[in-house]
Amino acid sequence: MELNALAPLAEQLFTDLRRLGNDGVGITRDSYGDGENAAASYLTEWAGHQGLTVTRDRAANLVFALPEDDGNTPATWIGSHLDSVPQGGNYDGLAGIVAGLLCLVEQRRSQRHTATPVRVLALRGEESAWFGRAYMGSSALFGKLTDADLAMPHRSHGRSLGECMAQAGADVDAIREGEMLFDASRAKAWLELHIEQGPVMIARNMPVAIVPGIRGNVRHNRVTCIGEAGHSGAVPRWLRHDAMFAVADLITRLDEHWRALLERGIDMVVTTGIVGTDPAEHAISRIPGKVDFSLEVRSQSLDTLDVFYELMRTECRAIERDRGVKFVFDRRLASAPAVMDKHVSSLLEDACRTFDLPQERVPSGAGHDAAIFANAGIPSGMVFVRNANGSHNPAESMELDDFMRGVQVMEAATHRI
Amino acid sequence: MELNALAPLAEQLFTDLRRLGNDGVGITRDSYGDGENAAASYLTEWAGHQGLTVTRDRAANLVFALPEDDGNTPATWIGSHLDSVPQGGNYDGLAGIVAGLLCLVEQRRSQRHTATPVRVLALRGEESAWFGRAYMGSSALFGKLTDADLAMPHRSHGRSLGECMAQAGADVDAIREGEMLFDASRAKAWLELHIEQGPVMIARNMPVAIVPGIRGNVRHNRVTCIGEAGHSGAVPRWLRHDAMFAVADLITRLDEHWRALLERGIDMVVTTGIVGTDPAEHAISRIPGKVDFSLEVRSQSLDTLDVFYELMRTECRAIERDRGVKFVFDRRLASAPAVMDKHVSSLLEDACRTFDLPQERVPSGAGHDAAIFANAGIPSGMVFVRNANGSHNPAESMELDDFMRGVQVMEAATHRI
Repeated sequence: MELNALAPLAEQLFTDLRRLGNDGVGITRDSYGDGENAAASYLTEWAGHQGLTVTRDRAANLVFALPEDDGNTPATWIGSHLDSVPQGGNYDGLAGIVAGLLCLVEQRRSQRHTATPVRVLALRGEESAWFGRAYMGSSALFGKLTDADLAMPHRSHGRSLGECMAQAGADVDAIREGEMLFDASRAKAWLELHIEQGPVMIARNMPVAIVPGIRGNVRHNRVTCIGEAGHSGAVPRWLRHDAMFAVADLITRLDEHWRALLERGIDMVVTTGIVGTDPAEHAISRIPGKVDFSLEVRSQSLDTLDVFYELMRTECRAIERDRGVKFVFDRRLASAPAVMDKHVSSLLEDACRTFDLPQERVPSGAGHDAAIFANAGIPSGMVFVRNANGSHNPAESMELDDFMRGVQVMEAATHRI
Repeated sequence: MELNALAPLAEQLFTDLRRLGNDGVGITRDSYGDGENAAASYLTEWAGHQGLTVTRDRAANLVFALPEDDGNTPATWIGSHLDSVPQGGNYDGLAGIVAGLLCLVEQRRSQRHTATPVRVLALRGEESAWFGRAYMGSSALFGKLTDADLAMPHRSHGRSLGECMAQAGADVDAIREGEMLFDASRAKAWLELHIEQGPVMIARNMPVAIVPGIRGNVRHNRVTCIGEAGHSGAVPRWLRHDAMFAVADLITRLDEHWRALLERGIDMVVTTGIVGTDPAEHAISRIPGKVDFSLEVRSQSLDTLDVFYELMRTECRAIERDRGVKFVFDRRLASAPAVMDKHVSSLLEDACRTFDLPQERVPSGAGHDAAIFANAGIPSGMVFVRNANGSHNPAESMELDDFMRGVQVMEAATHRI
């Protein structure tokens, strides 16, 4: 149990990086910007002190390794992302990098090396909050960033993603060409530890959990329901085309379908995160003539996404007929679900058993870089660590004990890969 | 049928006042402001040319009469309001004043006087758009403006209603004291012609209609549904407290009750004119933790308002239990329904019959000054004139022929009061 001796080291890392990323409200480590760079510099220096090597890949992500590692043998890659959302928390992303670094430090101190070398990847740019595109650092490695992606402007200063990546040292020409910058044959596995971003593990009292899969999603950023505005007192029900009543009807119907599908054991969630009458024309005594809303369905199953999406469109058509309204959809956006590798997951599960931890599985509703690695054909596994108050906010709260349990599970698995 | 000879005069009045009130988009005649003053000055001068007398009452409303009228005999009062909403239409309010003026001009030209003298009241400040308070000009006459009302600030320049009324020449001290500025014993009836603000008369092909009553309402300007925000992908249904799904559930339940009550012949409408997730924190992938909405129920029956309101609160409690959310209500605002006088309405109905017009009744969903006069005990009657495109917008569209039919009906009634 030497690993637990590293808990104070982990605590120090979290404390220092919290101080470094403090924006007065929460943590800000902007993708390909000052915040992310500061964290990268700190970790580079820290790793040097620990006797680890640090290099940068062609997408400007950091690669940590043992000095004995010549880089030619296929490795177990452990990692997560450096960046955070604006005014976010300290653990979303960072915890997975620290977990990997502890595995390396443990090997360095104990000189008990794994058969397959461990390399740690500190990815840049996972959060979509900055450029409107998620998984930038991992997508760049697999030739998945398009011209349109690279042209996306930063939310505040407006400079393009490509420009910011270049400034951070990425080979943007190769990325634009779609060149493969990560050799999948050099990867025997991808392991990612991440805080849970929902309340399931707290509700079920699970310190760690194995992630069987990452939900994909189907989205419309904006659906507009067009009805007919009118005086609230003067238009009777039979002549109304109330856009808000129509949207409420739709949400209620979707909620009923959702409930029915859950009873049949189907994995999915549905959310309308943004809903609103038009502030330019709404009034208490005006029947809403127009309501905008966002719609998102997530599931581990592509079939479920497709079926629920079609069902939603059918309900829209029914409501259009019933209520004399019209639903107008913007571009359908989709992101594929990813399945974690059965063998890698079973190794993580074995480790949980060894340490007397529950072996329950919790699917990931949020997206992760692990999905990019898994969908590139690399056997991937994920460990969730219990976390209170959700993520993407300063109140993220992960107990150090829970974190160390997660690292232990992952470290045990690296000895069997 | 001499009255129809006055159609060009009416047309001229509407055209001139449209030009005067043109704001580039629609018509703006701001209550106790420049727009309303301009219309008042124009009408004062015009009435002088027509040989009518014009005075101002102590609430700064205009009173038009025949020169023979000594003001001491109880009269039939005809009127409506001078003001409009910002970027509104030309007919909402003005049509009722022009109708009254035509009745006076007709008597002046024909010298065929009514037994009960006709006086025309051009009321100020009926629209709540400017100070957040409706029926200001008529309420002032009946001591119904409170200190709090008089302190309400103008929507743009912020000066108080009291200050603006004083500037227009009203006796604000007396109004503040709640003094009765209108002698109800000098009124045998109140008649008001108004455009319909809904689509019922167009749908039913009725040029004019008699209004049996004016709906009252119960309102909350802001109800807040408080749930719990969370990551849209990471929180399963059983742990969600989605404020938007809860509000949709409420709207759908109210809609079902509404439909059931309509089938039993109960008069009511329900509207949520303003609904929205919080722009400061909403996101496509965030479960809404808070939704604000307005709620308004209107009915001709006070009992219906009370019953439906209680039913709404009961549904809120049920949803609170079902979904783990909380509904927080601001102050309950209510305005009483008003019943038009049976005798006055029958006189208007007789006139419709004489002119071969349908005698159908259309209740008023919108509020009108007539409600203030009726609830002050003055026998009141209202005539609706068909109008396309609703009201409170530049597209209000009343045919001159329909208007003249309405004036004819009203004028005929004045000879029998």
